[in-house]
Amino acid sequence: MLDDRPAPGTVRPRGRTERVRAAVLAATRAELEAHGYPALTMERVAEAAGVAKSTVYRRWRDPVGLLAELLDDVTPTAVPLLDTGSIDVDLRGLAMGIYRFYSDPVWRSILLGLIAAGVHDPRAAGALRDFFRVRNEHAAESVRHAVERGELPADTDPVDVIRALGAPFYYRMLVTHEPLDEAVAERAAAAAIAAAKAGTHSIR
Amino acid sequence: MLDDRPAPGTVRPRGRTERVRAAVLAATRAELEAHGYPALTMERVAEAAGVAKSTVYRRWRDPVGLLAELLDDVTPTAVPLLDTGSIDVDLRGLAMGIYRFYSDPVWRSILLGLIAAGVHDPRAAGALRDFFRVRNEHAAESVRHAVERGELPADTDPVDVIRALGAPFYYRMLVTHEPLDEAVAERAAAAAIAAAKAGTHSIR
Repeated sequence: MLDDRPAPGTVRPRGRTERVRAAVLAATRAELEAHGYPALTMERVAEAAGVAKSTVYRRWRDPVGLLAELLDDVTPTAVPLLDTGSIDVDLRGLAMGIYRFYSDPVWRSILLGLIAAGVHDPRAAGALRDFFRVRNEHAAESVRHAVERGELPADTDPVDVIRALGAPFYYRMLVTHEPLDEAVAERAAAAAIAAAKAGTHSIR
Repeated sequence: MLDDRPAPGTVRPRGRTERVRAAVLAATRAELEAHGYPALTMERVAEAAGVAKSTVYRRWRDPVGLLAELLDDVTPTAVPLLDTGSIDVDLRGLAMGIYRFYSDPVWRSILLGLIAAGVHDPRAAGALRDFFRVRNEHAAESVRHAVERGELPADTDPVDVIRALGAPFYYRMLVTHEPLDEAVAERAAAAAIAAAKAGTHSIR
């Protein structure tokens, strides 16, 4: 059984801490994949990870803490960003990436679980706010370049174009409970691009 | 104390049932206003309504059941619909109505509570799906008229224009946890109109 007490001898405390973290996050992912978020408990995760229950509670407190830490792993890889020199290509690619991201049941569980919790739990809300602030700033880079190239009006708010692109996915998943498909992604991109070209996403 | 057993004598069962329903829903609203959704319990509602706890459990099962029934009262009144002969005026008015709706802490609690529950609870998801199906169909009427007048392309999907108008509100409330204001509503309407005029909300 792993725990995060410093081990005497060869294993550095840092190494053990990292191993505990990796084991717990891998167990959380596996639990989400097998049983979904509603069934996620600290006990099951601790058991699956081979880590003391008290350690899991102390470091992550509750399932929201586990989801929030998994969210940290999303940033660099899960939704690819393009910067091809054409805003249409870039945003269509981004929309397709968002669609694929939410087609993965584990990522879907992590994000929708945090969104559901975030309605009432300030820690989940804060994790989402921070994640999307960084993520949307980063994704806005290709919009900024399109403005520089003159593809979009000079006063375009790049982050708001990214918000507009993302919004339809969440509306369907959370509000109307309609399925996502590639046509939804295609239309989300086309609508965001058309509105941006028409100047409606201008800086306020 | 009210309950829903048929009363001997003067009060018709139907009348008593309706009185219990009205008392429970009024108590639910008052509880939401005073304490918010996370504090909503069947016990508090029963006590505030002066209704037997067993009655509240039997008819509404859990807080989701109470929210779902309150949602039924939203349809005709809470977000006004316009049909002025100008799609710009109609959709700006609708967006402002959505903004005002979510500025009311009780309506906000009801809808966001159901949305949070709906991620994991099929009953909440079904209530939302049914509500927005009817509501969005109804709101799409002015878009249909705009198509008939030639303000929007002939192949416009009217419900999808309404989806596009609503999506930014939920994105901010649920995903990025950014505040709503009138400028958000204005921009949501302008973007939906611009995209619809550009033909991106065409029927698939």
